[in-house]
Amino acid sequence: MSPRPAPALPHGLTRELVAHALALAHGDALPANVARDVFRIGRHSLLDWFAVACAAWQEPPVQILLAEIQEEGATPCATLLDGSRGSAVQAALVNGTASHVLDFDDAHLQSRVHPSVPLWPAILAQAESGQRSGKCSGREALAAFAAGVEFQSRVASLMGEDHYRLGWHNTATLGALGATVAVAALLRLDTERTAHAVAVACTQAGGMRALFGTMGKPLHAGQAAAVGLRAARLAARGFTAVPDILEREQGFASLYAGKWEPDRVWHDASVPRVHGIVYKYHASCYGTQAPIEACLQLRQDHAFSSDEIRTVEITVEAQYLDVCCIANPSTPSEAKFSVAHMAALALLGRSTVDAGSFTTALDDPALAALRRRIVVRAEAAMPRANARAEVTLAHGGTYASHSDASRAKTDLARQEVRIASKARSLLTPVLGSDRAEALIGTVLACDALDDVTACFSPCLAPV
Amino acid sequence: MSPRPAPALPHGLTRELVAHALALAHGDALPANVARDVFRIGRHSLLDWFAVACAAWQEPPVQILLAEIQEEGATPCATLLDGSRGSAVQAALVNGTASHVLDFDDAHLQSRVHPSVPLWPAILAQAESGQRSGKCSGREALAAFAAGVEFQSRVASLMGEDHYRLGWHNTATLGALGATVAVAALLRLDTERTAHAVAVACTQAGGMRALFGTMGKPLHAGQAAAVGLRAARLAARGFTAVPDILEREQGFASLYAGKWEPDRVWHDASVPRVHGIVYKYHASCYGTQAPIEACLQLRQDHAFSSDEIRTVEITVEAQYLDVCCIANPSTPSEAKFSVAHMAALALLGRSTVDAGSFTTALDDPALAALRRRIVVRAEAAMPRANARAEVTLAHGGTYASHSDASRAKTDLARQEVRIASKARSLLTPVLGSDRAEALIGTVLACDALDDVTACFSPCLAPV
Repeated sequence: MSPRPAPALPHGLTRELVAHALALAHGDALPANVARDVFRIGRHSLLDWFAVACAAWQEPPVQILLAEIQEEGATPCATLLDGSRGSAVQAALVNGTASHVLDFDDAHLQSRVHPSVPLWPAILAQAESGQRSGKCSGREALAAFAAGVEFQSRVASLMGEDHYRLGWHNTATLGALGATVAVAALLRLDTERTAHAVAVACTQAGGMRALFGTMGKPLHAGQAAAVGLRAARLAARGFTAVPDILEREQGFASLYAGKWEPDRVWHDASVPRVHGIVYKYHASCYGTQAPIEACLQLRQDHAFSSDEIRTVEITVEAQYLDVCCIANPSTPSEAKFSVAHMAALALLGRSTVDAGSFTTALDDPALAALRRRIVVRAEAAMPRANARAEVTLAHGGTYASHSDASRAKTDLARQEVRIASKARSLLTPVLGSDRAEALIGTVLACDALDDVTACFSPCLAPV
Repeated sequence: MSPRPAPALPHGLTRELVAHALALAHGDALPANVARDVFRIGRHSLLDWFAVACAAWQEPPVQILLAEIQEEGATPCATLLDGSRGSAVQAALVNGTASHVLDFDDAHLQSRVHPSVPLWPAILAQAESGQRSGKCSGREALAAFAAGVEFQSRVASLMGEDHYRLGWHNTATLGALGATVAVAALLRLDTERTAHAVAVACTQAGGMRALFGTMGKPLHAGQAAAVGLRAARLAARGFTAVPDILEREQGFASLYAGKWEPDRVWHDASVPRVHGIVYKYHASCYGTQAPIEACLQLRQDHAFSSDEIRTVEITVEAQYLDVCCIANPSTPSEAKFSVAHMAALALLGRSTVDAGSFTTALDDPALAALRRRIVVRAEAAMPRANARAEVTLAHGGTYASHSDASRAKTDLARQEVRIASKARSLLTPVLGSDRAEALIGTVLACDALDDVTACFSPCLAPV
């Protein structure tokens, strides 16, 4: 397909976006009160990332990758979440994959990117492996995270909706670019080198939505982290490509979207994009979060039993019909992309946090019976990540509830409590209570650390 | 851009293509006389690959990657072309990149893929690192090469011209899929596992033509080899994705081409696609080969001096205007994509084989003066990889010559002589005469080897 007519992209866009993102990481681009929230959100994402990644360590895609890199070997210089060590790229690959297995990681709806899974594995691997040239403090790592989110989110604005709609997995493609900029920030690359590094990442950017629901999806996160990390490291060694990959002819916007929306790139330029990060409190696709919350609300407010339910109608926005509306999931991965399955769990009072419990529920006859009585439909006017649930009971009564999972929370104190609670429930079975609490405490105070990799300590087996 | 209407792709296409390619590698799919030529072409490609890769070892992209992987470390189990060793993926990455630096490697015009650079590095790395489960003979390696060429070329037929025209570098994207199938053949994966491996490679397939003329282009070959190698190895360990990535909705054909030509996939199904491989005897882009040959012919036939030349008109096919018609190259990489520069070298009797000599000629005033008198234009009717050169002399005489570089040679004995000669001129400065001859002799007889990795021996420093 030939590119449709689209407005010409401004010359120098790649460099400008790189410079804008790097400014968040270096110097004092932000007023102190803004910086405080940026760092706090970064800590929330880091804790959430550790929790969802550690909880997935035994999953097949992680164990397969682990066996592969163990055979490869490496000079051990970067920590994997089981306490073993590998090369920086290996750590980024495996830790990154682990963190996206459960589909429980944070999200940035504006850019359709799960921001932490490509960024934190790359940042932590570089922080540790680069220690010969100096420790990386908690604040440097948090600032690099903000820079990575900034870059990938503003590129997402450039690409518009078409990138995802065509079939690209933004977390993979745009995540690799974010990881490049985040690692470039740690390496103190200038704008020009970073722009070249972004091109090296672009030309390795993959990630097809056609692999959703398979082991391929979490692999995308690991590969985005690894691609971005290596691109920045190669650029630091003098590897060059082109400094204008986003806007040039047959460049990233052209090849990966076909049309673009340059006006959106600088929207709210003074507000760091980390403010758009939202967190999941149910272990399934983001599109299922609002339906679950709506069902939980109904169950709490009206105390009906599942036997009393005649039908359930769940209304979601149209885009989710293709993403997470598998009617009869038959694998654990598919379950996470089934609004009906997750809604049934919520209505039955089953856990939606412990992925093990809801995936083993696939064969549960009560659950299957309820799922068959649930209809999921789309409504053009439904705002993103909103949903309505309407339960009709056997005796004829009808109750409805609406939920909005689209907005990042502004009450960061409450957000911290919820994330700590989620982390506790995920980490305790893996690390035990003491180490789980140590990890939560260390990460939530990591901006005081001289060396951000101290966050790994509670993951390591006690000596 | 939404996919245009296109014929529905046959269900099972990925599996069928995989099975077809694997049949070339296993069993006795071919009559003996056909198999003999398939193996012979494979040996030519392997020798050509060694030569162009060894000659590029000191080039910056190779040395930068080498420094990076040396820092990574690895259990040494696969040989790099300088005799050092790394992990299989590292060897594939660096050897593959080295082999595409000079733009001097073989080509498969029908598929627009340089077939050897993604395949041989992956095959050799797997052959060596997999030795614990048995040696890989020369014939097994050559058969795996034939399978890889077969798969990537028939996928290219499926994708049609749009894949390349949109901006993808087929050697990177399709090369990764070929490497996957070639390594899967060595690992004796069945059709189903190989089809899953192909999906894992597809979802990591990158390579933008926007990076042509930079260090990014050779990197594409290395990354294709590494991606394919790892995809097959992961599938062997049980990593799964989808078995129908080519044809499924938002699958590879849809996302990377937008329309497709299924009728072309099985064209001449009984003729192995290795028969389409052509070799370069001038160290520049394939589109410059016919113009160079035409100019050499003119110089030989008419014995004019460069001072006598008033103008030169070179006519190429239209597609090459975007690829290799840089009018005033300013870097060594750009020189290889400049028909005018290469034609000027040929008309001046300078070497077009030794990349060093033609790139240092960038600053030569005589060359620049002649280049300015060369006009390159396109003609819609010009067949692929054909060219016409027309020289008008100061005294008014006009001579024309036509050259066709599009066809694979059927005289394989003569082809072997030319490739051995090219290899000799590239390898002797690097290895010295004795080791160069040893490498040429070993590779050209490699179908008799129990262990194909014996080909590396002449690359290693003498003990």
